[in-house]
Amino acid sequence: MEHVRIEKMKVTPQLIEEYFDKLWPICRSITGNGLRESFRILQQIIPLQLEEVPTGSKVLDWEIPKEWNIEDAYIITPDGKKICEFNINNLHVLNYSIPVDKEVEFEELEKHLYYIESLPDAIPYMTSYYKENWGFCISHNQFKSLDKNGRYRVVIKSTLAQGSLTYGHVVLKGESDREILLSTYLCHPSMANNELSGPLVMAGLYQKIAALKKRKYTYRFVLAPETIGVIAYLHKYGMYMKEQIDVGYVLTCCGDAGDFIYKMSKKEDSLTDRVAKHVLKHQEIPFKIIPFSVGGSDERQYCSPGFNFPVGSLTRSIYHVYKEYHTSLDNKSFISFDAMIKTIETYFCFVKALELNANYYNTIQFCEPQLGKRGLYPSSNSPDVNRKKIHDLMHLLSFSDGKHDLIEIAEKRNTSLFDFEEHIQHCVEKEILKIQ
Amino acid sequence: MEHVRIEKMKVTPQLIEEYFDKLWPICRSITGNGLRESFRILQQIIPLQLEEVPTGSKVLDWEIPKEWNIEDAYIITPDGKKICEFNINNLHVLNYSIPVDKEVEFEELEKHLYYIESLPDAIPYMTSYYKENWGFCISHNQFKSLDKNGRYRVVIKSTLAQGSLTYGHVVLKGESDREILLSTYLCHPSMANNELSGPLVMAGLYQKIAALKKRKYTYRFVLAPETIGVIAYLHKYGMYMKEQIDVGYVLTCCGDAGDFIYKMSKKEDSLTDRVAKHVLKHQEIPFKIIPFSVGGSDERQYCSPGFNFPVGSLTRSIYHVYKEYHTSLDNKSFISFDAMIKTIETYFCFVKALELNANYYNTIQFCEPQLGKRGLYPSSNSPDVNRKKIHDLMHLLSFSDGKHDLIEIAEKRNTSLFDFEEHIQHCVEKEILKIQ
Amino acid sequence: MEHVRIEKMKVTPQLIEEYFDKLWPICRSITGNGLRESFRILQQIIPLQLEEVPTGSKVLDWEIPKEWNIEDAYIITPDGKKICEFNINNLHVLNYSIPVDKEVEFEELEKHLYYIESLPDAIPYMTSYYKENWGFCISHNQFKSLDKNGRYRVVIKSTLAQGSLTYGHVVLKGESDREILLSTYLCHPSMANNELSGPLVMAGLYQKIAALKKRKYTYRFVLAPETIGVIAYLHKYGMYMKEQIDVGYVLTCCGDAGDFIYKMSKKEDSLTDRVAKHVLKHQEIPFKIIPFSVGGSDERQYCSPGFNFPVGSLTRSIYHVYKEYHTSLDNKSFISFDAMIKTIETYFCFVKALELNANYYNTIQFCEPQLGKRGLYPSSNSPDVNRKKIHDLMHLLSFSDGKHDLIEIAEKRNTSLFDFEEHIQHCVEKEILKIQ
Repeated sequence: MEHVRIEKMKVTPQLIEEYFDKLWPICRSITGNGLRESFRILQQIIPLQLEEVPTGSKVLDWEIPKEWNIEDAYIITPDGKKICEFNINNLHVLNYSIPVDKEVEFEELEKHLYYIESLPDAIPYMTSYYKENWGFCISHNQFKSLDKNGRYRVVIKSTLAQGSLTYGHVVLKGESDREILLSTYLCHPSMANNELSGPLVMAGLYQKIAALKKRKYTYRFVLAPETIGVIAYLHKYGMYMKEQIDVGYVLTCCGDAGDFIYKMSKKEDSLTDRVAKHVLKHQEIPFKIIPFSVGGSDERQYCSPGFNFPVGSLTRSIYHVYKEYHTSLDNKSFISFDAMIKTIETYFCFVKALELNANYYNTIQFCEPQLGKRGLYPSSNSPDVNRKKIHDLMHLLSFSDGKHDLIEIAEKRNTSLFDFEEHIQHCVEKEILKIQ
Repeated sequence: MEHVRIEKMKVTPQLIEEYFDKLWPICRSITGNGLRESFRILQQIIPLQLEEVPTGSKVLDWEIPKEWNIEDAYIITPDGKKICEFNINNLHVLNYSIPVDKEVEFEELEKHLYYIESLPDAIPYMTSYYKENWGFCISHNQFKSLDKNGRYRVVIKSTLAQGSLTYGHVVLKGESDREILLSTYLCHPSMANNELSGPLVMAGLYQKIAALKKRKYTYRFVLAPETIGVIAYLHKYGMYMKEQIDVGYVLTCCGDAGDFIYKMSKKEDSLTDRVAKHVLKHQEIPFKIIPFSVGGSDERQYCSPGFNFPVGSLTRSIYHVYKEYHTSLDNKSFISFDAMIKTIETYFCFVKALELNANYYNTIQFCEPQLGKRGLYPSSNSPDVNRKKIHDLMHLLSFSDGKHDLIEIAEKRNTSLFDFEEHIQHCVEKEILKIQ
Repeated sequence: MEHVRIEKMKVTPQLIEEYFDKLWPICRSITGNGLRESFRILQQIIPLQLEEVPTGSKVLDWEIPKEWNIEDAYIITPDGKKICEFNINNLHVLNYSIPVDKEVEFEELEKHLYYIESLPDAIPYMTSYYKENWGFCISHNQFKSLDKNGRYRVVIKSTLAQGSLTYGHVVLKGESDREILLSTYLCHPSMANNELSGPLVMAGLYQKIAALKKRKYTYRFVLAPETIGVIAYLHKYGMYMKEQIDVGYVLTCCGDAGDFIYKMSKKEDSLTDRVAKHVLKHQEIPFKIIPFSVGGSDERQYCSPGFNFPVGSLTRSIYHVYKEYHTSLDNKSFISFDAMIKTIETYFCFVKALELNANYYNTIQFCEPQLGKRGLYPSSNSPDVNRKKIHDLMHLLSFSDGKHDLIEIAEKRNTSLFDFEEHIQHCVEKEILKIQ
């Protein structure tokens, strides 16, 4: 895989907002030119390699559907008004609608209209990928105002044809082939938290990881249409990944100011979950831990029984729970670019913790090392001495038997593993600590 | 073992009460004709095969005692009144009393009288199986009214002679030889919760299990005098059962309206205990879980170190705890035939759960199966969709790796395993699920 | 190792106080004649064998320092007053001070003075074993009163010379070579809870264990200067001990009236910790359990990764927590000889529990033994029977499968293992219980 070359950027709320604004208006789906255009924009901030999977390809239990493209869509009311205009809001059209151009009675039209009574101003987001159908999504208020008599003209200028599905990925090599997976999706039209937060957080995280001077792990970034795109990706790369993935996270619904929610992988004692819980516990902001469940995103594929990668997910306002989910209300006013930066930073803390974590081995196993002669211990037992710091060091050495990783050692002392970073550096220099 | 043939019956409170009334007056003991007569009555509703073990037979660490039979017993007071009449309440005689017919002073009589000061109206239930003795049980109120002067005539027309101990059992064959044990005792004279609830619940449960169209498990029903009877049974069948028993329950004290108490087997992570706890948790009525303890019934034998079968027990008002236990107050007014039906139904839920439980295996292990093309998924992501039901199905498939049984899978979703029954049927039909 | 012969003594508060008073005035350090003199006094109540390790010996990662001895020390103030007199309180001199006799300005003196602002009347305890230095410890109140002008004469008549480090130990043989380690330190000058409580509790415990008629375990008592002394001891005996030690405790800070604190070993499921927690739970006095930590005493060496003996510690007011720690306020008025006796008794309960604990095996594994024919069961089911006691016995037999030790069996019944002592004796006599 050749890398697209991009320049290094400082990850700021402004940068994130700039790309949000570029991506927002595009009508994406699980295939098509809107999807490709979105990938091209994202390639400016994360050097994704794109791959195309032709219509009709068998991918595991699934088949790549026809490619969908759309030019325009609207309804003409009996009194000649143009409503549900695709060009005003691309949610108005049922995603993957077949082309249509005909006049219908209200009674017939009604069967093809989608609205949410409990959110009367919201346009719902609806799809029909695997069953041919046409339809429009409309606010309940507008629906109620429609004339029940007269004929409506419905126009959807779409095509469903032989084509391909597009996904992108990039692998940042580290010293080891052991991999950390970061995955998100690109396939929803104009939605914010449940679409653009994932790719934008991923791009920010890419920038930070690429800037690391030294990387132990190899990082795999996957950006694909949800479900079918990831299934196609795993069809090709899954068996290799099964051997390599140590840790993984699905980035989704992580762009608003809601408290962090960490959803565990199926392997609840995995390094993925241990590092996430450890980092979150030592950040002084509220968070919640929830178990793995199938109502979510692509962790469903990654954690399917045959793969069962240790893949968790750090979200904020989570799918199905916030009322704006899958509607036109999940928009720029719902999210926060400062919060998105904090999400990036928290994921980056997971990464730094994973890079620091190891099974350290104290080379002086019998009794404690004499720290004083190595300049690592104060020369008197003065009450001024920073006892917490010295005890951190002695704790680290005492538990470094090569069988417990740093996270365990830190948790036993109820302190952050980052508190040991400097001690590890000194002890490695003095050769009383090495990585097992 | 040949089966006694019985007709199928509907298990109703009326049926249970009818047999309760038939069994109540009989004076049972660990041997004797009262015991045999009770078995004959029960054979009308559960086709027990009876076996006789002769007096003097060595059974494990024990020996079958002489057979005890009794015709009559009473005391004639100094003023000629007949009291403690066996024919009025068979609890009046110390169970297993040797024959006696003599005149004694009150001082001598008193050594052979049993009463409970804290329950002044209750006649206690007392036995002396393994030490020859005679005695009468009397309410404390009556005891206090006795004349301390004059001579009393004591008459017990009993026999202790070479004979045998009787027990009954029946095995309902299933597709597999793996067995579920249901065991209770028959040996107490006229008592209700701590005697007749067990055999009556067992008979009701037999009727329901026998009516199942299909049985995976083989069901073994054991009805024997407590302790010595079950020891004799295990002397003969224990080593075979040790190889076959997967699950077992002792039926006792389960006939009154008290809340359910589930007493665990010694193997607290056994299928026996897991299924009981799972079913009880998803019934919307109160219950309590208690650990295994030796103060109980025949689980003491079944869970003895050499056998250690996974045998638990679902009770209501439990032995030693309710004040009427082992007295004349444990009678028809203490129990409830509706509650007994609910006990039968709950045990039957354990059975249905065991029949449904299995290690299922999703035949599409890599990524999720495409449910839509099999008609198992709604064709659009409409908000009207029953998400709980679809997610149940996806959860089932995601966790069906063949390593976890259905109970575990249901518990991970905090839902009843019966919620998966229909999904399992559909998925087995579509060949995306099979039993591992 | 030959045993010093001592007479047996009754362990009373008076005895403990007598030896406290003898040991208190001596200026101890990690080497030197004060240390040797203290050992000689202790040999009157615990028959320690002494060993000397020469200066310069390499012991694991450490080296035995020069031997330190001191005759006198004081400061003459500009106005001719003698202060910080070693002969009044041996804490006044920085322990391991090099000799000095010179006049210095206040500015220079101040760099060699140690005090605690938050405890203005306390003389701190300070050491400088591994970096040559001189100094005085002084109360903050006295420090504040010092004249900042004029010259001070500082005199320390000490020697640092080739010599040796002294430690003592004694091994009480039992039937088995499996060992229980009891370890404490001797190296602080006049301090009470954090110095003399350990050796005095050890001596009392020695007296009680030596008086046992029968001992299953071998008991190793180690008394050495903290850290370097135990490192020297482990350098010589550690590899043998690694094979032999089943249980161990470090005796420290156990002489005041504070509630018991039990600090676990690193192996939290060790017999060491299980027995301590079990005994403490069934003593009806308050206690607290804390995890292993490096801020403590010689458990740091015993639990170092290469050895990792199961060594815990029962303390009262614990190091670093009570404000008098490492100051002149940790004196006779801080401690309680009655409390020290209770500490000895509690440790002795650990010992008795360890001696009683075993994996017992019920020789009648299939169904319960008939207890009646062995005189172990009441002949009738009278309500007067002590059911708790009978059920204890039946519980013991039911769980004695040879795989669970007595502590586990007792914990399952939530009762003290000592409640089974008499039953075990009876059952062993009747040959229905044996040690696996």
